[in-house]
Amino acid sequence: MAKNKKILLAHGSGGRLSHELVQKTLASRFANRILDKMDDAAVFDFSGRLAFTTDSYVVSPIFFPGGDIGKLAVCGTVNDLAMSGATPLYISLSLIIEEGLPFDDLEKIADSIQRAATEAGVKVVAGDTKVVNQGSADRLFINTSGIGIIPGGVSISGSRAAAGDKVILSGSIGDHGMAVMSQRQGLRFQMPIESDCAPLNKLVADILAVSKSIHSLRDPTRGGLATTLNEIAAQSAVGINLQEDKIPVREPVRAACEFLGLDPLYVANEGKLVAIVSPEDAGAVLKAMRQNGYGKNSAIIGEVLGEHPGRVTMKTLLGASRIVDMLSGELLPRIC
Amino acid sequence: MAKNKKILLAHGSGGRLSHELVQKTLASRFANRILDKMDDAAVFDFSGRLAFTTDSYVVSPIFFPGGDIGKLAVCGTVNDLAMSGATPLYISLSLIIEEGLPFDDLEKIADSIQRAATEAGVKVVAGDTKVVNQGSADRLFINTSGIGIIPGGVSISGSRAAAGDKVILSGSIGDHGMAVMSQRQGLRFQMPIESDCAPLNKLVADILAVSKSIHSLRDPTRGGLATTLNEIAAQSAVGINLQEDKIPVREPVRAACEFLGLDPLYVANEGKLVAIVSPEDAGAVLKAMRQNGYGKNSAIIGEVLGEHPGRVTMKTLLGASRIVDMLSGELLPRIC
Repeated sequence: MAKNKKILLAHGSGGRLSHELVQKTLASRFANRILDKMDDAAVFDFSGRLAFTTDSYVVSPIFFPGGDIGKLAVCGTVNDLAMSGATPLYISLSLIIEEGLPFDDLEKIADSIQRAATEAGVKVVAGDTKVVNQGSADRLFINTSGIGIIPGGVSISGSRAAAGDKVILSGSIGDHGMAVMSQRQGLRFQMPIESDCAPLNKLVADILAVSKSIHSLRDPTRGGLATTLNEIAAQSAVGINLQEDKIPVREPVRAACEFLGLDPLYVANEGKLVAIVSPEDAGAVLKAMRQNGYGKNSAIIGEVLGEHPGRVTMKTLLGASRIVDMLSGELLPRIC
Repeated sequence: MAKNKKILLAHGSGGRLSHELVQKTLASRFANRILDKMDDAAVFDFSGRLAFTTDSYVVSPIFFPGGDIGKLAVCGTVNDLAMSGATPLYISLSLIIEEGLPFDDLEKIADSIQRAATEAGVKVVAGDTKVVNQGSADRLFINTSGIGIIPGGVSISGSRAAAGDKVILSGSIGDHGMAVMSQRQGLRFQMPIESDCAPLNKLVADILAVSKSIHSLRDPTRGGLATTLNEIAAQSAVGINLQEDKIPVREPVRAACEFLGLDPLYVANEGKLVAIVSPEDAGAVLKAMRQNGYGKNSAIIGEVLGEHPGRVTMKTLLGASRIVDMLSGELLPRIC
């Protein structure tokens, strides 16, 4: 590929250049028996409980410490499937490219997509590519939709949290949001901040292997941990009480949040999950999570209450109790 | 809803305004048992041969005669499923909104999505909404992915066209592309041009009800009829010969194409299909198609040849024979 080759409008025309782009740059990297048929739809046999999800990614910049928009798109959709207890199987990949995007960048992102898909064990089976004129999009937007299968006996939902359940968090919060923000603002901190962007389906499999009493699973992305827990509290009509001293925040993230006046509870994560688990199983689940590389800093950070349905509260470091509201207003645009 | 309300960046934050937008403007319109659970993934039982497809829509302008980006997104994905012989069941809906889009426009488009989904008999079961700052997208982009089920005994693929097969087209070509172009350029013709945008799954069901020998089905969207037939000729390693006098082109479309120097063979359609059918069944299929409102102008426009694999030719009105190549270069950007 010529070093300075760029995407042209004609790459989105549906004609010869579109075919070349799809075949040489994309399909060749993701080759598999289903995709290779190149019909209007991917076709495969399926039998069981199906999980289906979609997400569009508009993160800016498209490359950031610890990842890029391609890795993010695969992990985000894999994680949405995993949070319903599903084993992710297939994803679709739809690109909206701004005219002028260097081929080099697109190829780097396609490689990154394939690496993330391989790690997660999912296949790209369907795709689409559109090109818009310069100024009508910001470099590259990606949509990934995904299909997974939910094993028998698994029933996980944001509406199943029950009084007495423990709230387990798989590691430190705020890493993704602050990595993107630092990159965007050109900030430098003493310790670099990397996005935690990662596929969590194997961590979920480890959890499900030791407990049948996982009530809710969710990855605290946009809106952060605070918003995710508010959603669960509302869906399940329960209260949730957190202990601030149990919530891991890496030092550079804490410093960057302070510098920018942000609360890590509201900053996006892309490689963390919250599990709401019956108290009897919490110990076993925590142990299993800590044995997985993506869960090694897992901690029980709070519990579910029967009182104050829909409300999340937190015992602060100083011993006070405060309400942790849902994010209101706009914190960090285009973080995912 | 206040008359002049506009989408803000905060509507994409994942926080309170995101929830309001999703609940009040979107989910309320599409309400169904699966969507209403509002977990990270839609969950339902499925058993059989599954078809899965994705498309992003970036059409400009977002409203055009005969449709809008919402109707287009539903019909496009429904049609991709139908072209694999599948009965469309579920779709996902992912919006990338430019800050400042009037709520009125979004509501009109959401209504249009729901109308098209109802006509096609599909449910919106999963969704996502992102907002980007002004100037980082052009008003609204939509991704729809879809899941359908392929009835037993149906095996349709662009690779199954065989020598002797008839090529049936469901009606006039070029309507969608020229409707969008006229709107974009502010052109006025004596007879208005409307997009043919329509869900074709019921037309496909009518076809499958009368023949088990449908080899290929495809909707000639971007790149037009010429590109679609070139794809099939290449995938099936056959030649295809067309008869120009059999291909319906509505008079205003013909006039607009002449005016703009375009060949209707390369102009996008969004409510037409091409069926490649064994010669014994062609008559019955044609009759069934003509009884469906979306196929009333169906015609046999050519046949599949054993010679010249990968090549599409056309006998012109003047009796000459010419090669009909795949679209090369860029004809009409952002037509879908």
